[in-house]
Amino acid sequence: MTDAAILAERVREGELRLHELDDHADADVAATARRLVVESQADTSLATVGEYGFPADRAESNIENMLGTVQVPLGVAGPVTVDGGAASGETYLPLATTEGALLASVNRGCSTLSAAGGASARVLKSGMTRAPVFRVADVVEAEALVSWVRDNRGELVDAAESTTSHGELLDVTPYVVGNSVYLRFRYDTKDAMGMNMATIATEAACDVVEGETGADLVALSGNLCTDKKPAAINAVEGRGRSVTADVTIPREVVEERLHTTPEDISELNTRKNLVGSAKAGSLGFNAHVANVVAAMFLATGQDEAQVVEGANAITTAEVREGGSGSADSAASGGDLYLSVSLASLEVGTVGGGTKLPTQSEALDVLGIRGGGDPPGSNADALAEYIAVGALAGELSLLSALASRHLSSAHADLGR
Amino acid sequence: MTDAAILAERVREGELRLHELDDHADADVAATARRLVVESQADTSLATVGEYGFPADRAESNIENMLGTVQVPLGVAGPVTVDGGAASGETYLPLATTEGALLASVNRGCSTLSAAGGASARVLKSGMTRAPVFRVADVVEAEALVSWVRDNRGELVDAAESTTSHGELLDVTPYVVGNSVYLRFRYDTKDAMGMNMATIATEAACDVVEGETGADLVALSGNLCTDKKPAAINAVEGRGRSVTADVTIPREVVEERLHTTPEDISELNTRKNLVGSAKAGSLGFNAHVANVVAAMFLATGQDEAQVVEGANAITTAEVREGGSGSADSAASGGDLYLSVSLASLEVGTVGGGTKLPTQSEALDVLGIRGGGDPPGSNADALAEYIAVGALAGELSLLSALASRHLSSAHADLGR
Amino acid sequence: MTDAAILAERVREGELRLHELDDHADADVAATARRLVVESQADTSLATVGEYGFPADRAESNIENMLGTVQVPLGVAGPVTVDGGAASGETYLPLATTEGALLASVNRGCSTLSAAGGASARVLKSGMTRAPVFRVADVVEAEALVSWVRDNRGELVDAAESTTSHGELLDVTPYVVGNSVYLRFRYDTKDAMGMNMATIATEAACDVVEGETGADLVALSGNLCTDKKPAAINAVEGRGRSVTADVTIPREVVEERLHTTPEDISELNTRKNLVGSAKAGSLGFNAHVANVVAAMFLATGQDEAQVVEGANAITTAEVREGGSGSADSAASGGDLYLSVSLASLEVGTVGGGTKLPTQSEALDVLGIRGGGDPPGSNADALAEYIAVGALAGELSLLSALASRHLSSAHADLGR
Amino acid sequence: MTDAAILAERVREGELRLHELDDHADADVAATARRLVVESQADTSLATVGEYGFPADRAESNIENMLGTVQVPLGVAGPVTVDGGAASGETYLPLATTEGALLASVNRGCSTLSAAGGASARVLKSGMTRAPVFRVADVVEAEALVSWVRDNRGELVDAAESTTSHGELLDVTPYVVGNSVYLRFRYDTKDAMGMNMATIATEAACDVVEGETGADLVALSGNLCTDKKPAAINAVEGRGRSVTADVTIPREVVEERLHTTPEDISELNTRKNLVGSAKAGSLGFNAHVANVVAAMFLATGQDEAQVVEGANAITTAEVREGGSGSADSAASGGDLYLSVSLASLEVGTVGGGTKLPTQSEALDVLGIRGGGDPPGSNADALAEYIAVGALAGELSLLSALASRHLSSAHADLGR
Repeated sequence: MTDAAILAERVREGELRLHELDDHADADVAATARRLVVESQADTSLATVGEYGFPADRAESNIENMLGTVQVPLGVAGPVTVDGGAASGETYLPLATTEGALLASVNRGCSTLSAAGGASARVLKSGMTRAPVFRVADVVEAEALVSWVRDNRGELVDAAESTTSHGELLDVTPYVVGNSVYLRFRYDTKDAMGMNMATIATEAACDVVEGETGADLVALSGNLCTDKKPAAINAVEGRGRSVTADVTIPREVVEERLHTTPEDISELNTRKNLVGSAKAGSLGFNAHVANVVAAMFLATGQDEAQVVEGANAITTAEVREGGSGSADSAASGGDLYLSVSLASLEVGTVGGGTKLPTQSEALDVLGIRGGGDPPGSNADALAEYIAVGALAGELSLLSALASRHLSSAHADLGR
Repeated sequence: MTDAAILAERVREGELRLHELDDHADADVAATARRLVVESQADTSLATVGEYGFPADRAESNIENMLGTVQVPLGVAGPVTVDGGAASGETYLPLATTEGALLASVNRGCSTLSAAGGASARVLKSGMTRAPVFRVADVVEAEALVSWVRDNRGELVDAAESTTSHGELLDVTPYVVGNSVYLRFRYDTKDAMGMNMATIATEAACDVVEGETGADLVALSGNLCTDKKPAAINAVEGRGRSVTADVTIPREVVEERLHTTPEDISELNTRKNLVGSAKAGSLGFNAHVANVVAAMFLATGQDEAQVVEGANAITTAEVREGGSGSADSAASGGDLYLSVSLASLEVGTVGGGTKLPTQSEALDVLGIRGGGDPPGSNADALAEYIAVGALAGELSLLSALASRHLSSAHADLGR
Repeated sequence: MTDAAILAERVREGELRLHELDDHADADVAATARRLVVESQADTSLATVGEYGFPADRAESNIENMLGTVQVPLGVAGPVTVDGGAASGETYLPLATTEGALLASVNRGCSTLSAAGGASARVLKSGMTRAPVFRVADVVEAEALVSWVRDNRGELVDAAESTTSHGELLDVTPYVVGNSVYLRFRYDTKDAMGMNMATIATEAACDVVEGETGADLVALSGNLCTDKKPAAINAVEGRGRSVTADVTIPREVVEERLHTTPEDISELNTRKNLVGSAKAGSLGFNAHVANVVAAMFLATGQDEAQVVEGANAITTAEVREGGSGSADSAASGGDLYLSVSLASLEVGTVGGGTKLPTQSEALDVLGIRGGGDPPGSNADALAEYIAVGALAGELSLLSALASRHLSSAHADLGR
Repeated sequence: MTDAAILAERVREGELRLHELDDHADADVAATARRLVVESQADTSLATVGEYGFPADRAESNIENMLGTVQVPLGVAGPVTVDGGAASGETYLPLATTEGALLASVNRGCSTLSAAGGASARVLKSGMTRAPVFRVADVVEAEALVSWVRDNRGELVDAAESTTSHGELLDVTPYVVGNSVYLRFRYDTKDAMGMNMATIATEAACDVVEGETGADLVALSGNLCTDKKPAAINAVEGRGRSVTADVTIPREVVEERLHTTPEDISELNTRKNLVGSAKAGSLGFNAHVANVVAAMFLATGQDEAQVVEGANAITTAEVREGGSGSADSAASGGDLYLSVSLASLEVGTVGGGTKLPTQSEALDVLGIRGGGDPPGSNADALAEYIAVGALAGELSLLSALASRHLSSAHADLGR
């Protein structure tokens, strides 16, 4: 019997629990033992799960009770030309997905963007938030707490920043509902996505609030952050990076490559992405931005649950007269201006899943693994690349819908 | 030079494009060639990406331009006892994630659920939607189209169902905004998540609408579906499965295992998940349901972009008097009732990423790979397992916040 | 001392309370006595409040503790030509408001609509809702209750309709959140706005639910109705009347009367009403529909608090090629198509404030006082007139913004 | 023939238009002439409309095309004891409504508040907003505009404040969507509601922006203000006054006066106002705050269309242990803490409808007609009185629902 088999037996006997295996063996043996336990419990095989391509202890800060890995197909779209605030040049975009046709669609969009001279992208606002909730006696105390926070900003900054070598507390915004007071702390977390940094720093600041006022901390997160839930506060005010990508595509490129017209794309965008989403009570006025966000998040080791906030995006399309300066364009009706604005894209190039072997390789494809110079520039670039990928995805899907081959595209690609 | 190297060279020379490689080599050689191209373009290595554990053609309907795979750590929580409409028994829950502490948290929740006798879960509504948008001349024609749809339901059913052997068209609901008419088609797609099935069937129905009325199809999706965007229509009316899981936990279990009380969890849930989310303008009244949805989606081959709709969930917590029947509970204040209701969980056990090797192994852990008997029961069970996982996650995080060790949990676990 | 003075003195002495005065005097004397009490308490005069133009007992079902009336200026816009499903012909629209420039603005819009041949309007959906909330033990009981409701629709119809001679129960839709079950009852309430009819009928149906299942009624309204709160459920599914008005305005009319172009109005509508509202997290994608709704509600005795739901409206504007068929239009770029769709306009022509003297006179201006023939047609017509008024208001304000004289219009008109 | 009859005839002959009558006669004669025109056109009488109690020219800045007035019943609730930041003492609350039972309900709430020692209220944030939308070329220009605004705040302040003797520009917040840039200007407008002041000041600032950057103003309002539409930006960030009122009511008062318990009200508030509104996709987590806002707005001359934003309110209810300090309370389960927080209440005591005769009398009842000392204090006090009225209304309706006599209350009161 192997070590793993012996350990598995001890788990089945109730002597050990799955998560205690790490104390009795190295990470790979522990994972093997867990597979044995689960395989016998479920009467199945986890052979492929066990064929992971790196030492299991590389993932020890990313998961507990590890069995192995899930393997998700990774591809590239592009190359695409990007003119960003932090990103620039010609690059392939890595996407991991199981949805057939998605990568081909983004790829078609990228080649059209490049044919139009490339896409621009800019991070326009940035900051990671955490919003604890405090209980006070009543509105009179709530007013006092709001005043205290405004008058003692320095103390909160000192406490928060004492916990981090990189983070900066940018501002603290109070919100009052009855005897609950929410303080939304916003941080510059540089190249880290920053949720943990923000949480730890905020906890220190909460200690100060509790120590110097009558307020009681109820929860370190009071949901005005808002993390991993669809919420207007993120769509309006932003969280992580607020980033926009756009492009002007000459009319002839639209017609020849996409088999549609600027007018048709603009009308379709209005009826679907604007009016349709309006009628649906949506916070996402786009076609499928989440597809690209999810696939690039997965490829680059971001937090998949934050795809939720990544979907807070607005796509606009308009016919731009004389954009290309050509006589033909003017006569035939103008070029296509297309943009996508992601309000709350939470990304990082350090920490979390970015250190894992395949994920860091994907970051290398973009040339932005690890901390940037200046700090924050790699995460900004990642946000811009994702925005450009989303722009490519929007362009391609809107065109496909306009030329009516959405379902046939899926059919051809075998789903 | 290997075949792959020769092909890579041809791509660099501009003779071939990345997506054409599949026409010139088998899937694995093509993937190798692509890695060579991208490696040289980005001056990096994709060695770990290339160490995937299955023949690349297994993924040919899941991705284009494949390079290899991303490996995401997979673990299990549980076992947990589930009393569902389709799911039942004691099972491990597979989760793939890169967020340290998440799996440990869900695991703690699962063991508490089991200590309370297990969780219940039920799918209460079900149906996959697709909502094309049509252009009509004006409101007079819009009224006529709405009438036509109501009077010709049979024709739409025939057309839609002619495209599928499994799907059933359940209903068609019209929405009018000016001269745009949206028809929301809802289908029973059995064990498939069903987005493609619904799209193809709806396209056939649209042909009928266009043929028999004056309406022009603008887009096969008009965003009232709503797919992969946060939208109230999904949160209110549901999409995919609407599923609830709940549990009553004896007071002593709460106190001993979670180091808090039913009263504290209930208050925290109200101030954070209800009032906090209300103030945030949210569609997600929960703590971190998306974490579990994302991790179980990734493990079981679901569409990661649909985590967006999966976050439309409401968590409730209340103190239940005398719930356990014990004199102690009554005297000391009652047990904890906790529920989580996911309005729009889009899942399947056939199609999409479910066929991939590691993902199908994860479905085997749950005993629900492939089509169920009766059809739809496996996807129902998956929805119920995810809901129970979400319940475990909510329980654990709310308890951690109530006992104030959120940030220290993350710190201990190394992020 | 007058009777009123004597009664006022008794109130001041603590012998009587304000609302008991109706038991000791006729309605007018009671109102006078109340004014005396309040005048002395606040050391002020209520002389104008006391100059109301009808016997106070005419308002006895509309208010308690009546002092007199508030007088709000009433004007008319139009006449405007309307082609509706229930409304038709040329009519003045009555509006009561205190916002200078509003009436002039709507008036300008009306004359433009008429110059374009009039506006069309249609009620596309209709039904008043009430949604009680029940408590059940858990999700297992919730599932049972949902099933019971589906299987016993007839019983609920019988109970609900036993309370009303006019109303019809159209459907009952269940929504489940944990152990709370909401049943949304929807009624055809004919010419009544119907909130009370729906409440009373629903209470009878709730008695049946409680009698035959284990569910406990927690509240006769569980906020999924949703009455007098902004809510996506109304914006998506409608409440009261869902009504659209639209018009195609020849290009030359736009240019000559409104000093702008179809292109400018369309662009402005997109950036302001669609994209701007999207970014604001809004349920109202319009410029100022609520202004017209509020003013026509006030004029015609509707419930002013329901202006909230009346604001759930979407305005669309597009350039329509060749709309007028004239060579000039084609050459110069097309006509203007403008629409406004109000999702949840709650109106009636019987009951509530419609019986009051000035309000019923305003309904007479529209020719729709009291019950219609067929029943419901007067309330439908009122909805259509309001939609046309809203269309006029949108047209005028969008034009004013496009030609940049919004603030100067207000300045000229003296505010 | 009277002057009015002659003028009416000239209108019917097409020689004059309704709005031109003011140029040919005094305001009262013009109104009479208009009534004659409308009476003959609609074949009806406007006798009561014509019985208004003040010279018509008093309303000349409030309406155009005046016919007379609508008379809405006015009553008072209270007196109620208020401890506010600006409001204080014991006062009657004036409400104008046509909804029977509303005033009685608020009155019952007021007397309960007073029995509990009165309600507290505080304005916690304040500022009127206007958000123009500019068109720029692309995201690169958008970034430049955002930078320019941040660097040239002083210029914008100077321009904006040059147009007003009272208003102060507090801040300017940029929001970018593609090539649309929205600048949300926020002002302290003292005792004025301030919409016009903000509009005029913002127009001056826009001239500076257009003059010094490449941006083009598309509309002076780009809907991120957001005025008269339901919008999360207002619910989250506030507009006008953000005001909270609260109270702790001894258990015995709840039981004796309201025939229910703190526990029942708290449970009902959670299931209805929190969970129910959550499920409805609402921005209003309350029972009927809009009723009180609408009635007090109407009584005091506010803008009725802004009831929309007034409905953005959250009501919370909790059982407070030992709140009253009495042994009885502790033994039997605690007192009731109830709060209502209105995020965006737009009120003024100068300008608009506040100058009209009956409306200014209603302001006198509250002792806050005209400008306050210090400036802004009267409008603050009005916000606090409305919040207390809303609290009374919530308390009463929640109690009625909890003790199940909602529909019978309406039935008794004759609707």
